[in-house]
Amino acid sequence: MKLKAKYIDVDTGEVTALLHDFDCAELGLREKDRVKLSLKGKVTVAIVTTSDTVVKKGQIGLMGTSQEILESKDGDLVEVTAASKPESVEFIKKKMNGQELTTAEITTIIADISSRALSNIELSAYVTSLYINGMNMRETADLTKAMVAGGEIINFSNGPIYDHHSIGGCPGNKITLLVVPIMAAAGCKMPKTSSRAISSAAGTSDIVETFANVALTPTQLKEITERVGGVLAWGGSLNLAPADDLIIKAEYPLGIDPHAQLLASVMAKKKAVGANYLVIDIPMGEGTKVKTMDEAKAYARDFIQLGEELDIRVECAITYGGQPLGRAIGPALESIEALSIMEGAKGPNSVIEKTLSICGMLFEMGGEYQGVEKARQILESGKALKKFQEIVEAQGGKPGLTSKDIKVGQYSVDVIAKQSGYVGQIMNKSLVRVARTAGSPKDKGAGLVLNKKGGNKVDKGETLFTIYSEHEWKLQEALNLAIRLEPVKIQGMILARVPAFSRVAL
Amino acid sequence: MKLKAKYIDVDTGEVTALLHDFDCAELGLREKDRVKLSLKGKVTVAIVTTSDTVVKKGQIGLMGTSQEILESKDGDLVEVTAASKPESVEFIKKKMNGQELTTAEITTIIADISSRALSNIELSAYVTSLYINGMNMRETADLTKAMVAGGEIINFSNGPIYDHHSIGGCPGNKITLLVVPIMAAAGCKMPKTSSRAISSAAGTSDIVETFANVALTPTQLKEITERVGGVLAWGGSLNLAPADDLIIKAEYPLGIDPHAQLLASVMAKKKAVGANYLVIDIPMGEGTKVKTMDEAKAYARDFIQLGEELDIRVECAITYGGQPLGRAIGPALESIEALSIMEGAKGPNSVIEKTLSICGMLFEMGGEYQGVEKARQILESGKALKKFQEIVEAQGGKPGLTSKDIKVGQYSVDVIAKQSGYVGQIMNKSLVRVARTAGSPKDKGAGLVLNKKGGNKVDKGETLFTIYSEHEWKLQEALNLAIRLEPVKIQGMILARVPAFSRVAL
Repeated sequence: MKLKAKYIDVDTGEVTALLHDFDCAELGLREKDRVKLSLKGKVTVAIVTTSDTVVKKGQIGLMGTSQEILESKDGDLVEVTAASKPESVEFIKKKMNGQELTTAEITTIIADISSRALSNIELSAYVTSLYINGMNMRETADLTKAMVAGGEIINFSNGPIYDHHSIGGCPGNKITLLVVPIMAAAGCKMPKTSSRAISSAAGTSDIVETFANVALTPTQLKEITERVGGVLAWGGSLNLAPADDLIIKAEYPLGIDPHAQLLASVMAKKKAVGANYLVIDIPMGEGTKVKTMDEAKAYARDFIQLGEELDIRVECAITYGGQPLGRAIGPALESIEALSIMEGAKGPNSVIEKTLSICGMLFEMGGEYQGVEKARQILESGKALKKFQEIVEAQGGKPGLTSKDIKVGQYSVDVIAKQSGYVGQIMNKSLVRVARTAGSPKDKGAGLVLNKKGGNKVDKGETLFTIYSEHEWKLQEALNLAIRLEPVKIQGMILARVPAFSRVAL
Repeated sequence: MKLKAKYIDVDTGEVTALLHDFDCAELGLREKDRVKLSLKGKVTVAIVTTSDTVVKKGQIGLMGTSQEILESKDGDLVEVTAASKPESVEFIKKKMNGQELTTAEITTIIADISSRALSNIELSAYVTSLYINGMNMRETADLTKAMVAGGEIINFSNGPIYDHHSIGGCPGNKITLLVVPIMAAAGCKMPKTSSRAISSAAGTSDIVETFANVALTPTQLKEITERVGGVLAWGGSLNLAPADDLIIKAEYPLGIDPHAQLLASVMAKKKAVGANYLVIDIPMGEGTKVKTMDEAKAYARDFIQLGEELDIRVECAITYGGQPLGRAIGPALESIEALSIMEGAKGPNSVIEKTLSICGMLFEMGGEYQGVEKARQILESGKALKKFQEIVEAQGGKPGLTSKDIKVGQYSVDVIAKQSGYVGQIMNKSLVRVARTAGSPKDKGAGLVLNKKGGNKVDKGETLFTIYSEHEWKLQEALNLAIRLEPVKIQGMILARVPAFSRVAL
């Protein structure tokens, strides 16, 4: 059937064709079925949406992508025929039924996701069935390889390539800013790619963006790594394992991150840059992704085993993520904290110790002895700062950058203690919400700095934390939220008193 | 934040707000997050889509439903604030985790589905997790009750109310056209509601539509049932358990029908019309929904048990669905076949026998003895035809309707046997595809009539089946498909010959 093209300038996130109810019935189609559209040699498959108002009988509404592919003008006659579902829908159903998928089936699913052949409903069924029924290690390795193959692969002229990755969930985890220059200062190649915040207050790329350009091309990533040793790039601009971004679009609204998909997502991006030695940081504790030691160990085992399948040597660090790392949360504030350490600051200890431990593991995987000592020496000698400034300059930042160059939000407020006692608990998720309400990560200068951390003694009237913002109204909203959520809990040393007579008649 | 309304005349199937990327970041929102929209006292929650071309900074694109609810005009300032996910997303996640849901949680899920608060991704996660993890009987009963409560409930002045239902999958199953008048002729009330075809060649309502109006209001359904005894209505116009239609929109693209959801969907529509005695027909065999006797029995047990929870007495008939019932497939052709039987035709036997069996079960549930004999007597006496004509007239059809009044497609072709032998297998799904290609169910006169059925002897050159169509080109396409699919397989009596020397060296 030939239908007249009508361009509709809306992107539904799916390749959509809007058909009149009558024409749909004529073609024997229903909403969510597929049609093949052909126009002057251009062909695409689209998902059917129906209407009896936006398009007339004989018309076809082409949205965003479908119009681009067909290069149609309004009034062009598009040939429309019924098309079958992508094969991968059957493979998703196999996974729903708890069956193991073959290599070819997994490859097809990832190819169909990448070419946007799957609808939101089908994508959601994929992540839901993966969440419930899981994948074994062979399937996970195939999934990883399929994801790698669908994107850019970067080959360095010589190795070894070092990498590290945190699976996330611990606010204030800015150690990448320290690890990369320490490793590079020792002559190791570390082409580190990071993400922007999804639901956290600041992803590593949001932090790096306060002083350098993070949207590098694959050529730039390669060139800077080979010349300077280290790089701090945003993964999003490099087109590494791009299926991942489309899968995240279905995972995010459901708040799930299926085990096999998490493993594959992390490892695909490492494989795509050719990592040889990789340390995975698994933060554990209340408010992080991993709640128990058993769960953390299961992740660790799986990362190591998947590494073997992919020919990447992996070691894992299970770290304490129950409260923020360091004191600063928010892009500019975290940059300053990390830079200050390279400039010689003696704290915060949690940031320094974690940085040195991760570097130490990497050095030792590469064959060194006493890796932590080596890392400490590089940091304290000022070599890390110098290498950091080289990386910044290579990525288009200010030569000789220091922590004083980085601006924080001009509005700030101290949140003080209403009573004396000890900090009993710090609520990660509440702190993140406060920082985000203050404007983080979009407003680079927004965030907060903790003055007191877990276990610290607090006197009434002392500052617990300071909120920074670029806008007065956002500061006010963040303060209101902080008062409501009480992210830093103060307790007396005695948490509960059991009376001498604990059996009382009611 | 206040944004300027811009109406976008597209229905995405979700309540959607289109925001500029900048404003999204400003509000700390991502694609698929939710926003609360307020304008002059009207409020709605919408799912966020982002764009940097269709809307400008400061604008908000309102699609279909959201614009209707807010009654916005272009340029109106809409107050936009971040809104949280519907509570039911957490309950869906509980089901993903294999946990049992409480009554309140199930009620919330159904209420959120009905109010279109859930996105396609969330709805898909619901049906996928239900498909994988299932529901126990208590949950299924709660699901059914929640679905009933969300729609129209019809109360008759007196009972008992009889009903029957086929879970589908067997082509040509037109017995409702016979069962309802037989029951009504005996003085039983049977307000039968049916569906239109989803993927079959003709739903009961498509068939009834060839001679009467099926889109009745609840008032009409009640009035006709009380006056005439029986009614043949389309469920879709009655707003019974409307959550079902929205759930089907997610099930259909995945080709799944989770056990608990199937049970609840069927029973909710029966409960909503106050059924007391209900026979469920479970067709079994190749090409139907139920493949094995064990599976059929499990459905039967669950329907009966769910009936107890809902105070409906249920009996089940597991029937042979491995080939079409009767000979006709397609709306007009099926009408003619059913009407001819009431007019005195002696076949097809499968239609007559199944009709009488189902009526017999219903009569016996109501306290009669020898229900099949009673049904046969009503059918053969002509009382069924007379009652049928009363029902047709009450539903706006032609008084004194006979099978000669119903028109079939003017184009037809006989498909003949290329060889002699026996009909070994009839492929239900292939026949349905041929009938749909010929135009069924949209073109009422389209379909096919089988001249030979399973086990019949066939001589070379004899007609296997005849295809009917209202359009020459559709007939040609249907014929091409029939030649390709060979829906009627002819075999010699000896299906395979095992040679005397079955061990042969290669």
